[in-house]
Amino acid sequence: MPHSLAPPPELPLDRLRIADPFWQRYQRLVQEVVLPYQWDALNDNVADAEPSHAIENFRIAAGRSDGAFYGMVFQDSDVAKWLEAVAYLLAQHPDPALERDADATIELIGAAQQADGYLNTYFTVKAPEQRWSNLAECHELYCAGHMIEAGVAYHQATGKRALLDIVCRLADHIDATFGPGPQQLHGYPGHPEIELALIRLYEATGEPRYLALARYFVEQRGTAPHYYDEEYEKRGRSYFWGGHGPAWMIQDKAYSQAHVPVALQTTAVGHAVRFVYLYAGVAHLARHSGDAGLRATCERLWENTTQRQLYLTGAIGAQSHGEAFSVDYDLPNDTAYNESCASIGLMMFANRMLQLAPHSRYADVMERALYNTVLAGMALDGRHFFYVNPLEVHPPTVHGNHGFDHVKPVRQRWFGCACCPPNIARVLTSLGHYIYTRRDDTLYVNLYVGSDAAFDVDGHTLTLRQRSDYPWQEQVELSMDCDAPIDAALALRLPDWCRAPQLRLNGDAVAIQEHLQHGYCVLRRRWQRGDTLHLQLPMPVMRVSGHPRVRHLAGKVALQRGPLVYCLEQADNGAQLHQLRLPAAAAIRTAPGSGALAGQVLLQAEGERLHGHDAAQADVLPLYRYDAPPASRQAQTLTFVPYFAWANRGEGEMRVWVDAGGDS
Amino acid sequence: MPHSLAPPPELPLDRLRIADPFWQRYQRLVQEVVLPYQWDALNDNVADAEPSHAIENFRIAAGRSDGAFYGMVFQDSDVAKWLEAVAYLLAQHPDPALERDADATIELIGAAQQADGYLNTYFTVKAPEQRWSNLAECHELYCAGHMIEAGVAYHQATGKRALLDIVCRLADHIDATFGPGPQQLHGYPGHPEIELALIRLYEATGEPRYLALARYFVEQRGTAPHYYDEEYEKRGRSYFWGGHGPAWMIQDKAYSQAHVPVALQTTAVGHAVRFVYLYAGVAHLARHSGDAGLRATCERLWENTTQRQLYLTGAIGAQSHGEAFSVDYDLPNDTAYNESCASIGLMMFANRMLQLAPHSRYADVMERALYNTVLAGMALDGRHFFYVNPLEVHPPTVHGNHGFDHVKPVRQRWFGCACCPPNIARVLTSLGHYIYTRRDDTLYVNLYVGSDAAFDVDGHTLTLRQRSDYPWQEQVELSMDCDAPIDAALALRLPDWCRAPQLRLNGDAVAIQEHLQHGYCVLRRRWQRGDTLHLQLPMPVMRVSGHPRVRHLAGKVALQRGPLVYCLEQADNGAQLHQLRLPAAAAIRTAPGSGALAGQVLLQAEGERLHGHDAAQADVLPLYRYDAPPASRQAQTLTFVPYFAWANRGEGEMRVWVDAGGDS
Repeated sequence: MPHSLAPPPELPLDRLRIADPFWQRYQRLVQEVVLPYQWDALNDNVADAEPSHAIENFRIAAGRSDGAFYGMVFQDSDVAKWLEAVAYLLAQHPDPALERDADATIELIGAAQQADGYLNTYFTVKAPEQRWSNLAECHELYCAGHMIEAGVAYHQATGKRALLDIVCRLADHIDATFGPGPQQLHGYPGHPEIELALIRLYEATGEPRYLALARYFVEQRGTAPHYYDEEYEKRGRSYFWGGHGPAWMIQDKAYSQAHVPVALQTTAVGHAVRFVYLYAGVAHLARHSGDAGLRATCERLWENTTQRQLYLTGAIGAQSHGEAFSVDYDLPNDTAYNESCASIGLMMFANRMLQLAPHSRYADVMERALYNTVLAGMALDGRHFFYVNPLEVHPPTVHGNHGFDHVKPVRQRWFGCACCPPNIARVLTSLGHYIYTRRDDTLYVNLYVGSDAAFDVDGHTLTLRQRSDYPWQEQVELSMDCDAPIDAALALRLPDWCRAPQLRLNGDAVAIQEHLQHGYCVLRRRWQRGDTLHLQLPMPVMRVSGHPRVRHLAGKVALQRGPLVYCLEQADNGAQLHQLRLPAAAAIRTAPGSGALAGQVLLQAEGERLHGHDAAQADVLPLYRYDAPPASRQAQTLTFVPYFAWANRGEGEMRVWVDAGGDS
Repeated sequence: MPHSLAPPPELPLDRLRIADPFWQRYQRLVQEVVLPYQWDALNDNVADAEPSHAIENFRIAAGRSDGAFYGMVFQDSDVAKWLEAVAYLLAQHPDPALERDADATIELIGAAQQADGYLNTYFTVKAPEQRWSNLAECHELYCAGHMIEAGVAYHQATGKRALLDIVCRLADHIDATFGPGPQQLHGYPGHPEIELALIRLYEATGEPRYLALARYFVEQRGTAPHYYDEEYEKRGRSYFWGGHGPAWMIQDKAYSQAHVPVALQTTAVGHAVRFVYLYAGVAHLARHSGDAGLRATCERLWENTTQRQLYLTGAIGAQSHGEAFSVDYDLPNDTAYNESCASIGLMMFANRMLQLAPHSRYADVMERALYNTVLAGMALDGRHFFYVNPLEVHPPTVHGNHGFDHVKPVRQRWFGCACCPPNIARVLTSLGHYIYTRRDDTLYVNLYVGSDAAFDVDGHTLTLRQRSDYPWQEQVELSMDCDAPIDAALALRLPDWCRAPQLRLNGDAVAIQEHLQHGYCVLRRRWQRGDTLHLQLPMPVMRVSGHPRVRHLAGKVALQRGPLVYCLEQADNGAQLHQLRLPAAAAIRTAPGSGALAGQVLLQAEGERLHGHDAAQADVLPLYRYDAPPASRQAQTLTFVPYFAWANRGEGEMRVWVDAGGDS
């Protein structure tokens, strides 16, 4: 008897098991290294890292410890993200030690919650009279959002309600405090996050007030008279953040996407993480509300972000000042900010767009961000992190030119502002949310990650088994297991980088073009146990060229194989990477990585080095020469490594975009 | 009866008359527009410019006006530089109105001077108890240096002693205050300038204490224990400048070249203006002292500056943070700081090096700085100024990316920190100091500026008449007038950019190579009235390429003709200048400028534009493309204008370094 698929769009993580070599390694790393390490960091037990104090702040707020609040005004969110990551992990792998630490932390959080539901250690410990007085700058709603996400995740993973109850009380308190009523505050967060969190809470609890509150925050944003100005005047013009001038965060409203109402925004502006968190929430809201205007807004801003302001590595945020977008086509490789968290937020935005209206273009960007910038954010050892992810690094300049103060040529152990490490952990443990999208009777396969996923279909279980050695190899096998035939559609994403995908169903070739819908190959049939798909995604090495308006890419080429963007490193190619050229005619071959890069697919090509001077010769060359003879060219084998794996072999130059030698 | 030449090395300006079309225009502009305009600015009579308050500060200090000090801690120096420029002008052109304003200002300055000789309106008006307590940050000695230079210049120009007496009293006060004695302060300026000024005062007065004090400041610099730290502790750790963190100017001792003693410095570091002012003083001191160590230090730092850290336009200071040098070979075109004043200071350093040990390499850089960055600092109308001089400007990015906050795509009317406009005025009015260097019996011609110069030689006058249409034309004529034959050497600089100079003496060809000394063609003979030299400096357009370690210049070419560096502007070539290519085979022709550029020599070449899409086509091109076909190429005539003349036709893109199309 056939059954049909139905929402929710996200696969519960307890129905997923990651089963491929690439991601199993990361999952083990998160479980065995990253989360314990971050637990130590949150408890200030990492010797040579910047202190966190995050757990201690909760102890003080709970009255269990003396002392002063320490850390960022949003320090609580590090704990929330850690708990959320733990929840996703526990859904897939029992880990009594981690669960015990998490339960204890949740108990502590409950003790730190105020009688009226308020929960924020900065304001509880340091400035209780200033609660909700500076939404523009002070991250209270942002921290609440992360705690809500943790509460939902922990309940889904463990069935335990303690944190869910805490965040419902918190959400109720916020719902009472904010809204259109005359006694309510008409504000909205300076740093979006709570919007998407409230919708997740609505999905988890069915409480429509949470959805309505999310909508209020979205619709109120950027309206006149401006709430940030009103609260600024009300509190006597005090401000929290200096650095770029007094009250700049209040005055520069585009920084937090509050310059005009969401419906009027046309270009990705301001702080990149704020932007993607906001529009992940807006897209989520658009799906629940069915509002065509909200959807059009999301599509418009998605288009601007990904067609005018996206780095090849799936990174966003071209300028350091304000960790922000720049202007269309301004994508400098070396001074880029490209925060790891912004690419995580871009994945969240992409995922909500897929759930709103599936199209492979969203998954293409999601994959690009995941396999390049997000993975690059963490060292292969799981203990060092990048906050900033440029596409070109020249260490002497980074050390000597303050325009590069935000860039680190090697990953750091922890950060004073430690948003990125736990964010990477939670995205790595919640991959299942991104791999699949369910919508009506269609199961979309967005990412080719070896896994066993069990979907509930009218009391039956449809198990989809993916096997691959992606992103290194071209073959993906998908097989079905079900105790009864099921009528449903399976939609396989055809990546933008793949020219000639091939598909066989139970051995028979499938005419992909006949099944193409929005970038997916959609196979609608009655699925039976043992049905098997063989998807072949040829991965020839591709030369990528940039839009002609991007002046930083003029005359340059990058290499991509499958979803992986590659780069040159000094470790393989020597210094002065700008002297290397990759002519169009150069054949490119794959080569196995070794040492720290063992198991990886590297690329090699016969390129050339201009000006092959030794150091002594170069030292005496004049700085400028008139009518110099053509530069000398020496053949040199160029070795490219995956961008995500760069800087795992010490400090050295790196660049993604290579001189094409006049060929592009 | 023959006579021989003798020092001083600088020609008194009252013995000089500029007589060429290019520079006469600038001299008129300075006299008729720049100095009156700046006088209005100093008196706050320019409507839409930032206020100066500089004259009013002196009025307040003199007790003639009420009110508070306003402006930079070094606001006095704007008045001093204006007076110095006026002095140079008055030496060459009587101007009763200007002289009346200057005399009144000098009278006011005298009234503002304190009984003990102290002179500084900031401290007199605002913080008298803090005198000499913060040399690292507060520019007292810097302002004193500029006033001393003005006093020397005004005395030389007009014979009036009022300002010279004022600055002698000031210098005596400083000499009593600073020195090795137990009751004296062992400090030295955070911003060098007084060193070279004291030596000029020594030359003007013969007072050896001034030379000794300059030497004290130079030798004390950077010694341990560090004076900046000692005074910081002594005043209770107060500091003046924020912005880059508390007391950064005290902590970052390389910023003011005080990190180690001068003798141990090997690389140009820190604030570029401070650096060149300091080493102009050190070179000046080295000439007077004959100290081989000081000379070697100057040569070492000159070499580093000009062979590792100099822009093609004669600009220095690659980074905005600290208006500072970066590291060797880090010369970004778009984010460059390149302060106008730094190139003026570089001319001063070069000029002192020429006086110390003549070599054309110093004059080559001096000419490069003058004809490119210094001239670019002022609009053709004399009323607008650049503080920052990048080699590439992309206005949408400048407006949208805060990494470019220091860059202005069009010149400004005035600045809150207005060091550059009066500095440009004083260098333009003192050109005679740079054109010629006298040393022993040799008269060096460093710059080919049409002029009549009268040199006193043992009671006789040797008049050297230069005529040329430089920098546009190749011919320079030099003729002699003297009432008696004179034994002397005339040394004509052979510019580095000139491959095949030709010289005729009274019609006969001179074998230049036989007379070559340190880059000059040195003709030693008995000169007679009517002796005439015809120097031909062929000016083919030259393609310039950068050192292979400068990654910003890889694959790029610039054009230079004579001393002028050229650039592309949007006004002639359309937007997206990065899409333009100048292949090696392209012939380049000169073309006459028109409109704002009338009278100038422009360059044209048949280049090409890649991706000649119209805007609508480009709007829909994807941001990245895989294995794209070779870019389309359209022939396009490229028009280059002199760099100094850019941005005189509204806002638009500009770039000096152009894609060479794989040919370099």
